[in-house]
Amino acid sequence: MKRVASGILPVIAIDRRSPEALHKQIYEGYRRAVLDGRLRPGERIPSTRVLAAELAVSRFPVLNAYSQLLAEGYFESRIGAGTAVSNSLPDQFTSSGLTTHARLASTRPAPRPVARRISILAPRGSALWLRGWGAFGVGQVALDQFPFRVWSSLVARHSRKVTRELFRYGDPMGTKALRQTIASYLRTARSVQGEPGQIMIVSGSQQALEIATRVLLEPGSRVWMEEPGYPLAREVFALAGCDPIPVPVDEEGLNVAAGIKRENRARAAFVTPSHQFPLGATLSAARRFQLLDWAQNSGAWILEDDYDSEYRYESLPVASLQGLDASNRVIYIGTFSKVLFPALRMGYIVIPPDLVEQFVTIRRAMDLGSATFFQEVLADFIGEGHFERHIRRMRILYRERRSKLVESIREELGNRVEVHGSEAGMHLTVTLKEARNDVEIAERAARRNLWMWPLSRCYMGRGRQGLILGFGSAAGQVIPRAVRKLRNLIMES
Amino acid sequence: MKRVASGILPVIAIDRRSPEALHKQIYEGYRRAVLDGRLRPGERIPSTRVLAAELAVSRFPVLNAYSQLLAEGYFESRIGAGTAVSNSLPDQFTSSGLTTHARLASTRPAPRPVARRISILAPRGSALWLRGWGAFGVGQVALDQFPFRVWSSLVARHSRKVTRELFRYGDPMGTKALRQTIASYLRTARSVQGEPGQIMIVSGSQQALEIATRVLLEPGSRVWMEEPGYPLAREVFALAGCDPIPVPVDEEGLNVAAGIKRENRARAAFVTPSHQFPLGATLSAARRFQLLDWAQNSGAWILEDDYDSEYRYESLPVASLQGLDASNRVIYIGTFSKVLFPALRMGYIVIPPDLVEQFVTIRRAMDLGSATFFQEVLADFIGEGHFERHIRRMRILYRERRSKLVESIREELGNRVEVHGSEAGMHLTVTLKEARNDVEIAERAARRNLWMWPLSRCYMGRGRQGLILGFGSAAGQVIPRAVRKLRNLIMES
Repeated sequence: MKRVASGILPVIAIDRRSPEALHKQIYEGYRRAVLDGRLRPGERIPSTRVLAAELAVSRFPVLNAYSQLLAEGYFESRIGAGTAVSNSLPDQFTSSGLTTHARLASTRPAPRPVARRISILAPRGSALWLRGWGAFGVGQVALDQFPFRVWSSLVARHSRKVTRELFRYGDPMGTKALRQTIASYLRTARSVQGEPGQIMIVSGSQQALEIATRVLLEPGSRVWMEEPGYPLAREVFALAGCDPIPVPVDEEGLNVAAGIKRENRARAAFVTPSHQFPLGATLSAARRFQLLDWAQNSGAWILEDDYDSEYRYESLPVASLQGLDASNRVIYIGTFSKVLFPALRMGYIVIPPDLVEQFVTIRRAMDLGSATFFQEVLADFIGEGHFERHIRRMRILYRERRSKLVESIREELGNRVEVHGSEAGMHLTVTLKEARNDVEIAERAARRNLWMWPLSRCYMGRGRQGLILGFGSAAGQVIPRAVRKLRNLIMES
Repeated sequence: MKRVASGILPVIAIDRRSPEALHKQIYEGYRRAVLDGRLRPGERIPSTRVLAAELAVSRFPVLNAYSQLLAEGYFESRIGAGTAVSNSLPDQFTSSGLTTHARLASTRPAPRPVARRISILAPRGSALWLRGWGAFGVGQVALDQFPFRVWSSLVARHSRKVTRELFRYGDPMGTKALRQTIASYLRTARSVQGEPGQIMIVSGSQQALEIATRVLLEPGSRVWMEEPGYPLAREVFALAGCDPIPVPVDEEGLNVAAGIKRENRARAAFVTPSHQFPLGATLSAARRFQLLDWAQNSGAWILEDDYDSEYRYESLPVASLQGLDASNRVIYIGTFSKVLFPALRMGYIVIPPDLVEQFVTIRRAMDLGSATFFQEVLADFIGEGHFERHIRRMRILYRERRSKLVESIREELGNRVEVHGSEAGMHLTVTLKEARNDVEIAERAARRNLWMWPLSRCYMGRGRQGLILGFGSAAGQVIPRAVRKLRNLIMES
């Protein structure tokens, strides 16, 4: 039964069969009428008794709706004069007879300013090569090899463990269990020095960089960037108003002497010492000492991004730069995106002891800290040995994929390309000997379901043409076919 | 059996019973010897054959270790002259005879610069009242009432659902399922306009503010802040180099006219229209229109933080400001920390359609996006009706706690205090009629296991003295006792 109150009343429809409560229908009806200009400021509203009778409902819902409209300021009540539409509502909002939408759409458009810095960032929409999954996606892992059964049972086990501590606001540094596990893993596997109290759990290496930047750098701070280097790191610095300074890399990694010559007074250096991104060099011992020495003397910070050092195929994993640093100048950044899976969004920072408080301050202001549940799951996953086992298995798998890829490249592309950085990690880079447009190749590849990053986009200046090929998510048997496809793409260009 | 190679060799101990592989022990032994200065640059290293014989091990681990040391640049090999410690290692790192740690500790300390802005933020360590749980913690929920069994079974169910999509890098906006669910919830319950494509999942309202600030504001941008207001919001603006402008609030919420008079050209306004934090007023209809009008005319943005609007005890929830906005000036921020639990770290932003791309750009540079797993769990929790049911139950529970608290305050403190904002949410504020030091009271309270925020800390300027009392995590039966304790604390001060 639908009843409509009219006459001196605006048309307010109520519907008893609606799941919406009566008082809410009355409230909404009046609110709309005011907003649409059907009821004007100062106009009288019937008493609750009259309206209830008119609508044939009890007085309670009407009283309820009126008190809400009074509380929100749509109505006002005058002593001895009943209730009326509020006089303090701006005229133009209520009396034009137009709906607010129609009214405002007709006024001149006001400016819609956004931060200028956004325009520094490359419009991501144009990077076709980031849109797919499979050969040769960079930063993609062999998801089908992840021990999901173990993981699921850990998740299910923790889902039954209900302690209030796990549901409150957590420590912005992360849970104790996970930080202890990571500290001991890093000590053993990566020669990283650091107590659990220095480890902050973050949502991946991107956030780690973001936090470190806000703690350590000012707008205008100069930061050494490897050239070529990791574009997403450059974006963090650029967004913070810093000034990235390209420093060339060679087969020994970052050319520290060139950096000193170019900008001795940089405030920080961003480096990937274990496996330079994207060319793959290992920062040599001599360069490590030079870099640490420069930092120590000039008061600069070193941001060490150790994104995939677990996978090394010809030798032991290289010890971290942080482990050589005697003056606490290195901020060490690690991630589980490459060794576990990206959607976990989990990584960590090893913070020099005297900066822990500042990192916490910034982290709190940014997002208060990471969610606790998967920290607990991960602590068990590592503590029970699944993590090490998984890494060992993946090292063998990725080594095979790597070898298959290198072999296929030799067969199909021979002398046309040069392979860089295949000793480690989950990608390698080929540089193109003849002049080709790598962006154009990567775009055409993406349209044919092959995903690779153009090397030139990793340079701040004019860079070499090449392709970064991930083999983490490319099964061994698809690699030869994918490389043949790649050869055709290169030849066509 | 422990064997030591000596003579022209540095003391390198290997231990066959150690779990450490032999090649790793040899590698570490040499590396340490170089770093400690026991082996000097240019010094010759025995051939692999000699060392293997000396240590009575096979040549393989020795070859393995040497190739690593060569690869990392600790050794160099000269044609016809065997292997030696690398000459390119800086002298001071290797020849002092001191360990690197001892050596560096003795040099003059270099500056350790951090960003100047950190010092703007209140040192959090001093806020004793943030350290505990129970009566009258602000922003704390009735965790014991959360439907953990339902939640756990959803988590367990999803832990068995292994689709690769859920483990890859996700959409920085969030999962489709959750965004659809939230869009329809907001439309119905909060009168928020917006398609799923405008909703970004974030890790809570703090991150939401942080992202919006980076998209919309520049260093130096002026931002209206409610005075008193939410201190954590002020921190976000201050960290971004913006200039927060205090605008007074009264019983109708933000005094828009005062804001216009004070700073007409502000770039944005931060408001809590449903339940002003901390005084509790609802922004009146007239003020809403005034605010929208100002924004529309001046090109300003409105950041609407709708942190606990689900809980309203005397009337329906107040419709959102965003729903009245015809010119897409409002960025609407919501969180699940108050209606579910804080450790979930989940919230959302409803973004004006023309700004979605910019929000995505900034979000990617910050942390690439939120973890997917709990987005899927939450989508089901809402979709299957548990969310609405939980809110309904909590509304009844919190209303009881609220009434108990108001009643106890009247009984114990009578005319000494004035109660504000008890119509909604999970906290109320009492202002102290006689001059007292609220910070000092809150500190003494914390030492006696009672948690409350001092009102004066919510002001940018000189503020009123008062206490913000949360009742979310305070069970009904403890409230009278806690209020008596509070009375004693106030009387003693």
